[in-house]
Amino acid sequence: MDRQIEPDLPPGLACLKNVDALLRCPICFDFLNISLITKCSHNFCSLCIRKFLSYKLQCPVCNAQMTEQDLRNNRVLDELVVTFQAARQQLSKATFDSPPISPKT
Amino acid sequence: MDRQIEPDLPPGLACLKNVDALLRCPICFDFLNISLITKCSHNFCSLCIRKFLSYKLQCPVCNAQMTEQDLRNNRVLDELVVTFQAARQQLSKATFDSPPISPKT
Ligand SMILES: [Zn+2]
Ligand SMILES: [Zn+2]
Ligand SMILES: [Zn+2]
Ligand SMILES: [Zn+2]
Repeated sequence: MDRQIEPDLPPGLACLKNVDALLRCPICFDFLNISLITKCSHNFCSLCIRKFLSYKLQCPVCNAQMTEQDLRNNRVLDELVVTFQAARQQLSKATFDSPPISPKT
Repeated sequence: MDRQIEPDLPPGLACLKNVDALLRCPICFDFLNISLITKCSHNFCSLCIRKFLSYKLQCPVCNAQMTEQDLRNNRVLDELVVTFQAARQQLSKATFDSPPISPKT
């Protein structure tokens, strides 16, 4: 996956780790890419879950039986991935860039 | 709503505003409380959308026709609300609490 190289979170942003984890696909562990939600309320990248279902008709997380027709777009997750990554990048930058003391001349 | 009094985001955390907005219900504007997702991929609090549907069988956001049976739990949003609020609180605290310079005696 080459969408974006992800820097580790600086120590001050460790609290964002849980949000980060919830926005990842349980199959590829990358950020969700075109999120689809199952009836059992689990989310996967569109490509990841379709590939999985071509092999086994069940949820990879909870094993509930399912078919491709049961999948539904979960667009808010796609938007959250974008806004979360932007926020994280900005916060990391602020944490790294700002010198401890910056007196004006 | 008395789940939590929400402080304004400090200026340094303004970039989290977009994430915040995505986790809110378009009916009550509070953080989603027991999120349900529609077929048209819109999300609402369980109580808010059920109340709305008892009056009109369509999506409050895009007007697509729907019934209560079309609703599906979107649990990851409930978890995101919790983790995002925790992270935000911690970041706000860090921003407010840490004095600009804190020399040890
Ligand atoms: Zn995936
Ligand atoms: Zn499942
Ligand atoms: Zn609501
Ligand atoms: Zn809708």
